[in-house]
Amino acid sequence: MKFDYPESVEQWGILEISLEGRSDGNPFTDYSVTGDFYGKNEVKRAEGFYDGDGIYKVRFMPSFSGEYTFVISGTGFDGTAEGKFEVFPASDKNHGPVRVFNTFHFAYADGTPYYPVGTTCYAWTHQPEETQEKTLRTLEQGYFNKIRFCVFPKHYDFNFADPVTFPYEGTPCDNSGITQENFGSYKPDNPENHWDFTRFCPEHFRSMERRIRQLMDLGIEADIIVMHPYDRWGFSEMSAEDDDRYVHYLIARFAAFRNVWWSLANEYDLMKKSIADWERIASIFCEYDPYCRLRSIHNCHAFYDYTAPWITHCCIQRQDDYKCAELTGEYRARYRKPVVLDEIAYEGNLPHGWGNISGKELVRRFWESAVRGGYAGHGETYFSGGGNIWWSHGGELHGESQERIRFLHSILQKTPGLGLKPVDLHWDGASAAAENGDFYYLIYFGFHRPSYREYDFGPEPYTVEVIDTWEMTSAVLGTFRGKVRIPLPGKEYMALRICRPD
Amino acid sequence: MKFDYPESVEQWGILEISLEGRSDGNPFTDYSVTGDFYGKNEVKRAEGFYDGDGIYKVRFMPSFSGEYTFVISGTGFDGTAEGKFEVFPASDKNHGPVRVFNTFHFAYADGTPYYPVGTTCYAWTHQPEETQEKTLRTLEQGYFNKIRFCVFPKHYDFNFADPVTFPYEGTPCDNSGITQENFGSYKPDNPENHWDFTRFCPEHFRSMERRIRQLMDLGIEADIIVMHPYDRWGFSEMSAEDDDRYVHYLIARFAAFRNVWWSLANEYDLMKKSIADWERIASIFCEYDPYCRLRSIHNCHAFYDYTAPWITHCCIQRQDDYKCAELTGEYRARYRKPVVLDEIAYEGNLPHGWGNISGKELVRRFWESAVRGGYAGHGETYFSGGGNIWWSHGGELHGESQERIRFLHSILQKTPGLGLKPVDLHWDGASAAAENGDFYYLIYFGFHRPSYREYDFGPEPYTVEVIDTWEMTSAVLGTFRGKVRIPLPGKEYMALRICRPD
Repeated sequence: MKFDYPESVEQWGILEISLEGRSDGNPFTDYSVTGDFYGKNEVKRAEGFYDGDGIYKVRFMPSFSGEYTFVISGTGFDGTAEGKFEVFPASDKNHGPVRVFNTFHFAYADGTPYYPVGTTCYAWTHQPEETQEKTLRTLEQGYFNKIRFCVFPKHYDFNFADPVTFPYEGTPCDNSGITQENFGSYKPDNPENHWDFTRFCPEHFRSMERRIRQLMDLGIEADIIVMHPYDRWGFSEMSAEDDDRYVHYLIARFAAFRNVWWSLANEYDLMKKSIADWERIASIFCEYDPYCRLRSIHNCHAFYDYTAPWITHCCIQRQDDYKCAELTGEYRARYRKPVVLDEIAYEGNLPHGWGNISGKELVRRFWESAVRGGYAGHGETYFSGGGNIWWSHGGELHGESQERIRFLHSILQKTPGLGLKPVDLHWDGASAAAENGDFYYLIYFGFHRPSYREYDFGPEPYTVEVIDTWEMTSAVLGTFRGKVRIPLPGKEYMALRICRPD
Repeated sequence: MKFDYPESVEQWGILEISLEGRSDGNPFTDYSVTGDFYGKNEVKRAEGFYDGDGIYKVRFMPSFSGEYTFVISGTGFDGTAEGKFEVFPASDKNHGPVRVFNTFHFAYADGTPYYPVGTTCYAWTHQPEETQEKTLRTLEQGYFNKIRFCVFPKHYDFNFADPVTFPYEGTPCDNSGITQENFGSYKPDNPENHWDFTRFCPEHFRSMERRIRQLMDLGIEADIIVMHPYDRWGFSEMSAEDDDRYVHYLIARFAAFRNVWWSLANEYDLMKKSIADWERIASIFCEYDPYCRLRSIHNCHAFYDYTAPWITHCCIQRQDDYKCAELTGEYRARYRKPVVLDEIAYEGNLPHGWGNISGKELVRRFWESAVRGGYAGHGETYFSGGGNIWWSHGGELHGESQERIRFLHSILQKTPGLGLKPVDLHWDGASAAAENGDFYYLIYFGFHRPSYREYDFGPEPYTVEVIDTWEMTSAVLGTFRGKVRIPLPGKEYMALRICRPD
């Protein structure tokens, strides 16, 4: 058997083994390949995949440094392949995969806290190369450390173009003349899709992998949306057998990237699948993803039951137009998992209510969730009359919220220990304390505009910092004991950070 | 018996009969006076009151024009007094008392719709004359058509001064040195109150009556707060017997003013009274107020049971910091009475969360309740470091909401028939239709900022008006049929009015 692999790899990096095998018949289904990896501290089995042109690949992410050996087995090859490689310690910027830590929070495998501030660009990897590059340049600004995007192309308002690649071999329906104006009545010449769901198009996945790796280099988690209902090509209504084959292929290709998260669906409840279908799909991830990447599922109306054991964190779209981030504490209590509010309306001016709130309102929602020990998500939806919209295409940002979200992240990183928890200090100012019990409070007044607030700190000294969450400024007022009146500017969107003196 | 009264009075005006009687003993308790009034269409009994200096008064509001006769009886007089008077039809500006009409709404007795836009100045009639006059000059601007205020003086943050008059004979505790800064620890030289709860101070009530009459002349309803808990003088903790005597006196003095509403309490649940106490007090109003003035009661935390038969309309303080006006439809469905949200946080910058929202947020709440078929209330609480605050003292307004509230009132007055009801048009834009079934819609987008919205009007023509609720402008876009895209400015606080062409 001819195969190739590197001699060494970084801890939490990707060891990829390429193998030459049979290309007759249908290599995606007729043959299989599996790798067994043996290190001092772990034994893992990873399914491989056919990458076209007679090449099979097996990917593995080692979680420890040191020497590993492997055995590749499968059909479509002559015999087995064996080898060994060295895993060298992670570089400074590589903290490993993100895990749930401290019940409600996240940290990298090396223990570095991870406070998610995510955005959504559903179809960014399906856009022309130039747009994808623009998106990356925007992401380089460090506004976000997570991005949600789809594997399957998207057919939805303001997003009717075919993707640059399709996930399967075949030909799509002809809908090249669809526009936002005519899509309700458009009659294509050729409305039929012709796909072979047993033959993936490796180029589609290779292209995504390139982007996932670039995100990894930027320190951004790739929250992969496995399925979604915004479809004219039939990918949302495949058979269970086709779905399962797709999920296996996805795991084989993507799971070894340490920044991958699995979002089983966007708006699962708009798809023609039963809960049994979702549980079956989830079970494939549980069984075949060797790294137990973070897993969740996103709702339109009804929440999925986030208590399901396979779900690592809530991935919530708001259910109420007026109140959502404010319910973070309730969600924590109910689900006992990290609360990620991945859709709480986007900054923009679309005709749709989910996409037309102000930057101020979106940032307010971010803070409301943060001080309740949860995490909100960003999206931008400025109506551009045919141009790119960040939420779907990526490209450039035009809003006001992203800088304030980055600022919030800088505040969250000051939390002692890992994570904030809601505490009941004020009925009119959501208040957080450090989960680790340190004297550390972050109080957010939101739309309230107090001129001052009084506290009784008792005999110990406390340092008080006033934060203008919109202007992105903070000022230490001083260190106080006993009863104190803290002057505030009587403006919206102010916060207080109260902690022990340095 | 010597008595005096005018020969004629306006319909819904006040016929006042003055009688000379005994002043020995305690005329407030030892003697009584009652009037029986006979008109072609009504027979009414009204209790009178002792007004000091040997003078008793009986007041009566006739609801019909034409000839009336009366008989006054009582103790403390020689025999009875009889007479007759002519009621002439109401003048143009006198529409009679406000009643509940159309289940969820209000109208004057002559059928003119009344859309309440109220404000709160708890202690404005207790302030120095000059301040009271300032308040009236502010009210002359026509921002509001209802004002909530207290009979008893108020002891509360930013409001520690003694009132210009007290409701009872006696001497108050000495708290002249109290300030916002020291009130928690202040020790007066003389902490005791000495009141005779059987002897009212007529001047206190005469002063209020003068203001009630001036409000009437301005077309403003006087929403009288009968009891409240913000007290250092003992008026909130009188015996049941004292309470009942007070209520009888209040009815005898105030009920004949057609613009009086009874609010049994502000924050009833902060007072040391049982539900049985409140029901007993309510029963006195039901039995002795000859005109069945509008009656409600205001909560701090728990709503009173607004289904109680004596309650004519809900008088709600919001229970949730984030969502209240948005629940108007739920309150309508639950209570089947007009929903008046008399406290939904005030425009200002006080340290207290109930008094520091922006004008924009308050106006948003007004519109949210209006398009759901309810009515919000105003208050202004700008911290002034010892100066007047509108919410308590009255005086001048400094905020941004009052003009927008007046503008909203002008829009409500365009409603065909009487009143709006919530309809389910958009999940992201609260929508109202006319209660009377006319094709008339008022759609409010609130914090949503759509660039356009599409409608399908069908074959009939409809006129569409875009309203900027903050800039107080409106523009008719045109008359449309069928499918139409309505351009919108992608700003917050926009509304649409859609109706049949004129």
